Amino acid sequence: MTRASRPPIWAAKFSEMDTRKRILIINPNTTASMTEKIRIAALGVCPDDFDLEAINPAEGPASIEGYYDEARSLAGLLDTMEQQPDADGYIIACFDDTGLDAARCLTDAPVIGIGEAAYHLASIIAERFTVVTTLPRSIGALEHNLARYGLAARCAAVRASDVPVLDLETGDSGARAKLEHTIEQALEADQSGAIVLGCAGMADLVSELEQKFQVPIVDGVAAAVGLMQGMLRMGLKTGRTGGYAPPRKK
Amino acid sequence: MTRASRPPIWAAKFSEMDTRKRILIINPNTTASMTEKIRIAALGVCPDDFDLEAINPAEGPASIEGYYDEARSLAGLLDTMEQQPDADGYIIACFDDTGLDAARCLTDAPVIGIGEAAYHLASIIAERFTVVTTLPRSIGALEHNLARYGLAARCAAVRASDVPVLDLETGDSGARAKLEHTIEQALEADQSGAIVLGCAGMADLVSELEQKFQVPIVDGVAAAVGLMQGMLRMGLKTGRTGGYAPPRKK
Amino acid sequence: MTRASRPPIWAAKFSEMDTRKRILIINPNTTASMTEKIRIAALGVCPDDFDLEAINPAEGPASIEGYYDEARSLAGLLDTMEQQPDADGYIIACFDDTGLDAARCLTDAPVIGIGEAAYHLASIIAERFTVVTTLPRSIGALEHNLARYGLAARCAAVRASDVPVLDLETGDSGARAKLEHTIEQALEADQSGAIVLGCAGMADLVSELEQKFQVPIVDGVAAAVGLMQGMLRMGLKTGRTGGYAPPRKK
Amino acid sequence: MTRASRPPIWAAKFSEMDTRKRILIINPNTTASMTEKIRIAALGVCPDDFDLEAINPAEGPASIEGYYDEARSLAGLLDTMEQQPDADGYIIACFDDTGLDAARCLTDAPVIGIGEAAYHLASIIAERFTVVTTLPRSIGALEHNLARYGLAARCAAVRASDVPVLDLETGDSGARAKLEHTIEQALEADQSGAIVLGCAGMADLVSELEQKFQVPIVDGVAAAVGLMQGMLRMGLKTGRTGGYAPPRKK
Amino acid sequence: MTRASRPPIWAAKFSEMDTRKRILIINPNTTASMTEKIRIAALGVCPDDFDLEAINPAEGPASIEGYYDEARSLAGLLDTMEQQPDADGYIIACFDDTGLDAARCLTDAPVIGIGEAAYHLASIIAERFTVVTTLPRSIGALEHNLARYGLAARCAAVRASDVPVLDLETGDSGARAKLEHTIEQALEADQSGAIVLGCAGMADLVSELEQKFQVPIVDGVAAAVGLMQGMLRMGLKTGRTGGYAPPRKK
Amino acid sequence: MTRASRPPIWAAKFSEMDTRKRILIINPNTTASMTEKIRIAALGVCPDDFDLEAINPAEGPASIEGYYDEARSLAGLLDTMEQQPDADGYIIACFDDTGLDAARCLTDAPVIGIGEAAYHLASIIAERFTVVTTLPRSIGALEHNLARYGLAARCAAVRASDVPVLDLETGDSGARAKLEHTIEQALEADQSGAIVLGCAGMADLVSELEQKFQVPIVDGVAAAVGLMQGMLRMGLKTGRTGGYAPPRKK
Repeated sequence: MTRASRPPIWAAKFSEMDTRKRILIINPNTTASMTEKIRIAALGVCPDDFDLEAINPAEGPASIEGYYDEARSLAGLLDTMEQQPDADGYIIACFDDTGLDAARCLTDAPVIGIGEAAYHLASIIAERFTVVTTLPRSIGALEHNLARYGLAARCAAVRASDVPVLDLETGDSGARAKLEHTIEQALEADQSGAIVLGCAGMADLVSELEQKFQVPIVDGVAAAVGLMQGMLRMGLKTGRTGGYAPPRKK
Repeated sequence: MTRASRPPIWAAKFSEMDTRKRILIINPNTTASMTEKIRIAALGVCPDDFDLEAINPAEGPASIEGYYDEARSLAGLLDTMEQQPDADGYIIACFDDTGLDAARCLTDAPVIGIGEAAYHLASIIAERFTVVTTLPRSIGALEHNLARYGLAARCAAVRASDVPVLDLETGDSGARAKLEHTIEQALEADQSGAIVLGCAGMADLVSELEQKFQVPIVDGVAAAVGLMQGMLRMGLKTGRTGGYAPPRKK
Repeated sequence: MTRASRPPIWAAKFSEMDTRKRILIINPNTTASMTEKIRIAALGVCPDDFDLEAINPAEGPASIEGYYDEARSLAGLLDTMEQQPDADGYIIACFDDTGLDAARCLTDAPVIGIGEAAYHLASIIAERFTVVTTLPRSIGALEHNLARYGLAARCAAVRASDVPVLDLETGDSGARAKLEHTIEQALEADQSGAIVLGCAGMADLVSELEQKFQVPIVDGVAAAVGLMQGMLRMGLKTGRTGGYAPPRKK
Repeated sequence: MTRASRPPIWAAKFSEMDTRKRILIINPNTTASMTEKIRIAALGVCPDDFDLEAINPAEGPASIEGYYDEARSLAGLLDTMEQQPDADGYIIACFDDTGLDAARCLTDAPVIGIGEAAYHLASIIAERFTVVTTLPRSIGALEHNLARYGLAARCAAVRASDVPVLDLETGDSGARAKLEHTIEQALEADQSGAIVLGCAGMADLVSELEQKFQVPIVDGVAAAVGLMQGMLRMGLKTGRTGGYAPPRKK
Repeated sequence: MTRASRPPIWAAKFSEMDTRKRILIINPNTTASMTEKIRIAALGVCPDDFDLEAINPAEGPASIEGYYDEARSLAGLLDTMEQQPDADGYIIACFDDTGLDAARCLTDAPVIGIGEAAYHLASIIAERFTVVTTLPRSIGALEHNLARYGLAARCAAVRASDVPVLDLETGDSGARAKLEHTIEQALEADQSGAIVLGCAGMADLVSELEQKFQVPIVDGVAAAVGLMQGMLRMGLKTGRTGGYAPPRKK
Repeated sequence: MTRASRPPIWAAKFSEMDTRKRILIINPNTTASMTEKIRIAALGVCPDDFDLEAINPAEGPASIEGYYDEARSLAGLLDTMEQQPDADGYIIACFDDTGLDAARCLTDAPVIGIGEAAYHLASIIAERFTVVTTLPRSIGALEHNLARYGLAARCAAVRASDVPVLDLETGDSGARAKLEHTIEQALEADQSGAIVLGCAGMADLVSELEQKFQVPIVDGVAAAVGLMQGMLRMGLKTGRTGGYAPPRKK
């Protein structure tokens, strides 16, 4: 009972895919090397019939580490979205899901945060998961997001590896060691079935960590692209009622 | 900045996709017309580089309406999975997500329930959603699932349309009217940004309902196929620790 | 002000007890030695004016250790109930409360799970309790039940002793040592006022453990019989609306 | 497989029942007619091998309607318990479960509140239940108890019938009509499988209301006696650690 | 036993008040008339030994109605704070508590949001309260804040009056009528003991609404000033660990 | 933009402050040295234009350590309130917030518990806080209060220092050492941004502990006076509907 050749009668949505779909990934910090790393991770899971771009604003914080950086990155993020109104789907490539709600006010297209994406997929492959992030200052923000999405009960712990975001860009071996140590602690103490990497800058480490620890490792960038392709094929749009209504003109 | 031609260095997972992936959808009831409807809905969102099958057990309840039918369908569902150990991903096409945890004990491949899939995607496109299902007796089971997945707070209400599952197979216009009436009530009272269709047998109605009500309508079958394709491209497996460990030999 | 001899005027329910009541305990696994152990534990708390039987299905898993065994035991459990429609009360003697909701669809009589019973009584004698169960794979299922019953906040921890169910049948002294070690850990770390034994196969250990640890030990089999006698004297029935409605004919 | 004649080997607890057990019910208000009504309701579910008394303090509020009356009844309640240290089990017959925690500090014997008892049993026979109480001022207190016991999610609503407690003593037909009207509203709106009567003074109405509405009606007095007999046969004691430790001498 | 004249020995904190304290209120939108209204409301509850200023950024949205406006107001808000580093306490006078966490990263001084302040005080004077806000698009944001602060269970409902923020500035009688109608609905349906006004622009209506509806009305501006004076006298600072650590230099 | 000299037009509430306000602090135990310590702590944060008294009942427990003492202190607490009906605000100076709801039934004036006050203020200065209290038996009561107020999720832990209340009165250096040790443990393990002192008898230690540990220390007595002055300037009253309605005459 493999794929039928005849077109389904009510396949209106499917035919929308006659044209190629464009996914725009926005890294809300200004570090271009991280944007390129994100792009490559995204390509790894992107189907041939989609186009994919990754960009970052010219101004704003070089990395997003805590509430203040989040707030300071919003102008650049929203400017970028307003300059690129024609993508079919938007991915916000900061694990704090910075500005996600505001972004959804700007477009009918689906908008996915990489933190959100990772949590949803981890919930499907494991009874509970652990998030391994960068600095302790980010724990609260991630916990709030988990609570808001409704997935806090699925998360055994948010653990900080004490690695600043930009140390992940320099290939610092100390950073890698700290990260692996934190994963070891999680596997020992948390009874988790999956590890979620809590920073876009860790996207290039998935395969090696999975090999080493023999446990599913979820990267938010790949997860968001994974989710987005399905949602675009389904023709799913953002529901523009309530909080996601278009901004009012003043 | 479109898709790069050079292969990424660490693209181990990506290359797994050199072989075609097979998605197996199991309808745990015995009604073949529903299985075919499910198959067509699934094809509508399935990419060309995946194979997709939909099957149902030969024995068990003709429809799953409440806890007793759920329990009676499990033998057929698990037998089917054990007879087909080689799929790359399994979808359980009953909105109650019957047997989902048990199925995950049988395979490293991802296993997705259509209820679960719909709730996760609806959480991404709307601040809150309403589920419109068949009979009142199913409300409790769906509410329990929502609570367990952690998404209960995202669901404004689970509403029963008072339509028995098999009435959806006969094209009964009364069934359609009741369903539409329930959606109207939801849109009026629930401040929901999306409607989730709470039965696999409603999968053919998405486009028409979306047209009529101008609100995102989420079908679980499409949602599960949408999720599965991303997860297979990512190479995500089920975490086999804790509750999802392989069954013990006695 | 001791018990009055004159009959109360409105004592309709009380007089129902003129006939002896029959409690049927179903062990949903196929291990007869465990069924006999359950029967003896049940007799220990059963009043003289009740009849009590304990049976098990002929086919199904020999022990229930995790989601897969649970699912595979349901056919035998429901067949047994349908063959014995005339009991006044049913007890499901698996600590996972396997099939409890499905069973309630079959009868007006009260149906009690031994896990459920233990949690409710432990909540009455202690501010918080710890559950000590068999294998780690069962922790998730018990936690889900606790959440569903609403009693998760009353439970300090579900701890696995790493003892397979059937090792409890062989009188293995290693099993006993592991169990006692886990109770010690619980008493030290959990600030719990009671210990709940998380497996029907532990029902014969209550007195000795209580002696040793000087803390209330709650066995689910006794708890279920304790609850059932009160409910039968009250004439309480299962409410057959919503999810507990009788199965629909197809 | 009926009740065995041979004594089980490890039946230490069972043999405790060689002596008759005494249950003491304390109505914490001073209205003797209510105490007698409570006693009769209790007798209706009390087995022959238990003794049962119902008493009330000489001083304190005539009825308990809200937080102030609760607080004012505590001295009488605790004095009564201290004067009667030898009961095998104590029942506090006020639906607010007034003083329940304080009472547990005074004795190893189990102490059960009638509100608590009713909620636990209702949770076993129905997916969700409605509480029908007296005055609106009591709703908050009952909701807090439900939350504390962990059973709030099982309760669809706490509804006030606007009947003062003492109107239930006078046989006022208006009171009965208001109560029935509130039950009707609950059955129509709440999708509840059982109704819990939220005042000890309603204990004599169970049978008639059950007859009239054909839905399980749970009275807290009967529920507490039902629970207590099982707990006494099990030999369950209050866990005296943490908050239930004996009061410190100053 | 009135105020002692002798100084307490350990009154270090008290003596801090020898110098006058300065409270800075930041209205994060750019509407000066609203800033002045806020200032007057604040003065009404400000003690003589404090100085109080109210300012707004020169650029940003004219009113904050939903997630997008919130995000667009953050640059102005944080610039303002950085330009005024010497206040003893900061109040963010937008009911969405826009930028509250980011602001706390910038100073040891206490930072209070007016939404937060109103919820805390309403929780002290009433078992539950209703929030009456402006447009439906703001409901989600307020509900998320309530959940995050932990006070969602104390809030019966967040109700939108369908009045745009700036209509409150024009003295539009239609706006007033809609607001009063929403309060009427709340008092009828929500069993709330207090009404919280969900917009800084309603701060001038408290007395009249309290007069009219004879129920406590809580305005966030006054609540924040009320809280701040106590916190400043106590010498309470923001805890700068975790998420509120100073921003990292890049 | 300092304080305006012209009176605001709608400053009705403000003018209420023409008369001095009286705050009455009731220590519900009978230890006068603790009452005096409370009074001095309160004075330290009390503005010049308020009068403040601290009293205790003549009879009742010498300290409140657990549920039994709480219940036994209520008669004295409520008698005291009824003898002093004319205060403008009442503070209950027991960290268990003993009798808080009952007290609110007696007066329109605001009534604040010191536990409640400390939790609310700690929630404003820290993402999460730890409570350090006296004996383990009090942990449950404080946890229940936190849950009831809605602030449990903001509290990382309630930790007992194992110091009996009255040892805090004797200046026992062992008591101080235990307390400091518990704070050290909290700072190491809980990721808390503030420490709440869980007993009125610790009110004199705030400054020294803050000095030593360099973290905000919140004392409930000061917090309650801090809150009360703001609420009195606002003219906030207790909402007398629902549970806080005046007691009914019998």
